[in-house]
Amino acid sequence: MSGWVVVAGLGPGAESLITPGAQAAIDAATDIVGYIPYVRRIAPRAGLTLHESDNRVEMERAAHALTMATEGRRVVVVSSGDPGVFAMASAIFEAVEAGPETWRALDIRVLPGITAMLAAAAAAGAPLGHDFCCINLSDNLKPWALIERRLRLAAEADFAMAFYNPRSKSRPEGFGKTLDILRECCEPERVILFARAVSTPDQAIRVTTLAEATPEMADMRTVVLVGSSLTRVIARDGAPFVYTPRSVTEAG
Amino acid sequence: MSGWVVVAGLGPGAESLITPGAQAAIDAATDIVGYIPYVRRIAPRAGLTLHESDNRVEMERAAHALTMATEGRRVVVVSSGDPGVFAMASAIFEAVEAGPETWRALDIRVLPGITAMLAAAAAAGAPLGHDFCCINLSDNLKPWALIERRLRLAAEADFAMAFYNPRSKSRPEGFGKTLDILRECCEPERVILFARAVSTPDQAIRVTTLAEATPEMADMRTVVLVGSSLTRVIARDGAPFVYTPRSVTEAG
Repeated sequence: MSGWVVVAGLGPGAESLITPGAQAAIDAATDIVGYIPYVRRIAPRAGLTLHESDNRVEMERAAHALTMATEGRRVVVVSSGDPGVFAMASAIFEAVEAGPETWRALDIRVLPGITAMLAAAAAAGAPLGHDFCCINLSDNLKPWALIERRLRLAAEADFAMAFYNPRSKSRPEGFGKTLDILRECCEPERVILFARAVSTPDQAIRVTTLAEATPEMADMRTVVLVGSSLTRVIARDGAPFVYTPRSVTEAG
Repeated sequence: MSGWVVVAGLGPGAESLITPGAQAAIDAATDIVGYIPYVRRIAPRAGLTLHESDNRVEMERAAHALTMATEGRRVVVVSSGDPGVFAMASAIFEAVEAGPETWRALDIRVLPGITAMLAAAAAAGAPLGHDFCCINLSDNLKPWALIERRLRLAAEADFAMAFYNPRSKSRPEGFGKTLDILRECCEPERVILFARAVSTPDQAIRVTTLAEATPEMADMRTVVLVGSSLTRVIARDGAPFVYTPRSVTEAG
């Protein structure tokens, strides 16, 4: 009886964005491990144990999954989006590196998923259609000074940007500071897009400019996309299309 | 009879990474449009016309798709990976913006897919598990000076990096220059990972360091991932795990 750990991404919410690979792993599992709202997306069935855990206990959750695999269980650790983008995959490998030698020998696989920024981009058009960067705005696990430095350098590089975890109740002020920094580095007309609960029935996309953006436009269910200097908005009846062209004609 | 255009991502190659949403659009289509190797991934069936086109005719392909939709056809434009990451979605919106007013009124949707860098990251562990950027190394559509500037700023920001289109027969020298720039900005031990033909039977992952990397390790089927200064390699029997930790304890 060989156990394994699969770290699988469930995508941003819609069933239509769960890959067949992730679904097959769930169907073959004996145990599902993850943050409460993600585990609740898994249909219960005989022979499958669902282990819900709270936020901010990623290392305990990883150790639990790895321990069960050494006991022969087939464990799927579920993340929303892609498990490798600000989600459980790094936590699993941190636990492996710090843990007993037996964990290194385990069959551990990561299955990619549709990450929120790409679902948000698709819902709006193609705002990440050129070079871009992806920054976690939470300063739970890194100093704010590093976030600020990355924001300034990303603006200087004229990357489009995607922000995860822009704002939470425990960190209400960080996103306002982010907007202030971007306003120092970018023109007021720069496109900024708030994508909330992408691909779910609650989906809401708001397209605006840096000059008009306010901190309250983001919450923890929001991914924020900022265009490069070349990002365009195509006005039309209904929601506009937002895209970043493929070409840059002069070093900008 | 209302036509539509769906721009769908087929993922990096494996059937298990095609989303149900993309498959449903293909099943509902009357016409498939795309670059030859991507259209060849679609199973022929009665009532479905496959339109293959060559590389570097993205604007003509976009206009063709939009024109067919105005005639009531249900058109899926296929890209590999995610259509919004260096693929057809931006070309479609460029065509819409430059085209006749009727195109703006069309039902145009982008469906996200598993992009190569995230499939490559998953195959290796979690090298993009912290802030990262994504750069197209082709200078077909932008000046090399801009690529060089972005590389230097990305290194200064200590982003992990993903590179698309690192090297082609027509641009054999660009990737060597990229390695030279990174060696100026990063330590020799910096982790670099070459992921070729990810998720296909030809998949090959090579993990090495900047000091050991050579231009020949990349070709047009390769995605290159460069770690941040904190990226770790866990040695083990078989392929190592590569991951970037979630935490940064000091402004680095």
